[in-house]
Amino acid sequence: MSAPRGRILIDTLVITGVGLIGGSFALALRQAGAVRHVIGVGRGRANLDSALRLGVIDEIGEAADAYARADFILVATPVGQMGQVFAAIAPVLRPDAVVTDGGSTKCDVVALARSAFGANIGRFVPAHPIAGAELNGASAARAELYRGKKLVLAALPETDPAAAARVASAWEACGARVFAMTPELHDKTFAAVSHLPHVLAFALVDEIARKPHADLLFQYAASGFRDFTRLAGGSPEMWRDISLANRRALLTEIDEYAARLAEVRSMIDRTDAAALDAVFGNARDARRAWLDAIEAGDKPAGAAAKAP
Amino acid sequence: MSAPRGRILIDTLVITGVGLIGGSFALALRQAGAVRHVIGVGRGRANLDSALRLGVIDEIGEAADAYARADFILVATPVGQMGQVFAAIAPVLRPDAVVTDGGSTKCDVVALARSAFGANIGRFVPAHPIAGAELNGASAARAELYRGKKLVLAALPETDPAAAARVASAWEACGARVFAMTPELHDKTFAAVSHLPHVLAFALVDEIARKPHADLLFQYAASGFRDFTRLAGGSPEMWRDISLANRRALLTEIDEYAARLAEVRSMIDRTDAAALDAVFGNARDARRAWLDAIEAGDKPAGAAAKAP
Repeated sequence: MSAPRGRILIDTLVITGVGLIGGSFALALRQAGAVRHVIGVGRGRANLDSALRLGVIDEIGEAADAYARADFILVATPVGQMGQVFAAIAPVLRPDAVVTDGGSTKCDVVALARSAFGANIGRFVPAHPIAGAELNGASAARAELYRGKKLVLAALPETDPAAAARVASAWEACGARVFAMTPELHDKTFAAVSHLPHVLAFALVDEIARKPHADLLFQYAASGFRDFTRLAGGSPEMWRDISLANRRALLTEIDEYAARLAEVRSMIDRTDAAALDAVFGNARDARRAWLDAIEAGDKPAGAAAKAP
Repeated sequence: MSAPRGRILIDTLVITGVGLIGGSFALALRQAGAVRHVIGVGRGRANLDSALRLGVIDEIGEAADAYARADFILVATPVGQMGQVFAAIAPVLRPDAVVTDGGSTKCDVVALARSAFGANIGRFVPAHPIAGAELNGASAARAELYRGKKLVLAALPETDPAAAARVASAWEACGARVFAMTPELHDKTFAAVSHLPHVLAFALVDEIARKPHADLLFQYAASGFRDFTRLAGGSPEMWRDISLANRRALLTEIDEYAARLAEVRSMIDRTDAAALDAVFGNARDARRAWLDAIEAGDKPAGAAAKAP
């Protein structure tokens, strides 16, 4: 499943939501010479104009017309808008076209897609690129965003293998490494390593900002606080949607974390130095091993997690 | 309280614990031409040899002899060792000498100092430089560490004003900005903006590392997780000591945070989008305002927090 530079993988690409995720996908495919024509669709005219001017897209399209011409559609809108977008795509989708998405949650997107595509659900390939930044809009897009990053391909039992292979090839042409995972495991995994830390960071800054002596506290917050709370710089709307979309898995993670925090609290309360040593030492060692693994090339842990 | 370059502020400086904090203090004072002779005292001979070789200190001293010669003593050991160090200093302290410390907690250090110095407590000036890194030992020391950073001077009612002024001048010669705060307010403030985030980060990595599918989770943890958990890369021993030393204030912060997290959990559980918007938006805005204030020069909020 390699994508040699210059091999056209996509004739007419439609990107709905030409922001950081969608725009960077288009730029990377252009740079790889893997796409002939890119049409941008979206609600924000100024953003689409900017995408056209910056060479991210070749054309600003009207939804139904663009979807009918596409052989590859990436839905890169917020998850909350995907139901509507899928409903607009379904009636005009070419039989040879594939649809994929870039949403941060998968089970809810799959449910929306099933409801819109019905018997054609096999043409839809759920996916999630593990890349991002605190920037929005077409002007934030860059061809290098996905280089060396992971792409989770969360195929369904009904997914057409050829459609999955096309989506995987396109992401590989962007420089991403493709990993397969069920939508359920995806959501459970990202609830733990992404959604939970975001909620914890938002809750901390909110809690501190509400204290009567908040000004004093912020005055003495330093670089550790800045790093810890960087996730609270994310879009409130996006993280509200993700938190609600992945509600069940996230609640489980919050509960398990809160229970562990309560145990650590009790260690401090009873001045149990040995128990604190064990928790802090375990955390430090696990984090170090994780960073070492990343340094060493971040090889996938097992064949089960490899690309389809 | 300015310290012109080249003006000798300290004749014989003794640093106990020549690591990042103590070693950087010595290097900064040397660079400013503010110290004549630096003696290093400590338990690790290899580290002291390295400090001597690197020019951080001029001489490796024996505790009692060195303390008797000093006109300025910085105790930069872990807080857990300070009681012993203070007890060794007290009987030989010159009447014109000042003692200060670099500990991350203040009420416990003050209690140890009171017990060791008795009627001479006025010569002890509790302090906390707000700088640090994940590095240890004399080889990590650098003259620039404190430049532009805050130094909290937590003077006691009994503190000799001249002693406090000498300590403030020395830190200003290192490039630090000196702020006054009571030990109690210091501990409450840092429990919120430093100790709590450390505990939260350690607890998260520990919790994830204990899960049966930890390998998979770490495989998908990305840059946001890395930043959020950077604090869990700190020394387990040091953070165990700080957590226990500042136990009362830290427990209060953990409880207030846990209560807020439980509220956010309930918002997610009942899919209350508006409430989540408010929490996430408040956090994002407060963090942005904080970063803007830092950018704008991080002026102290009020005269009350200014140096003595």
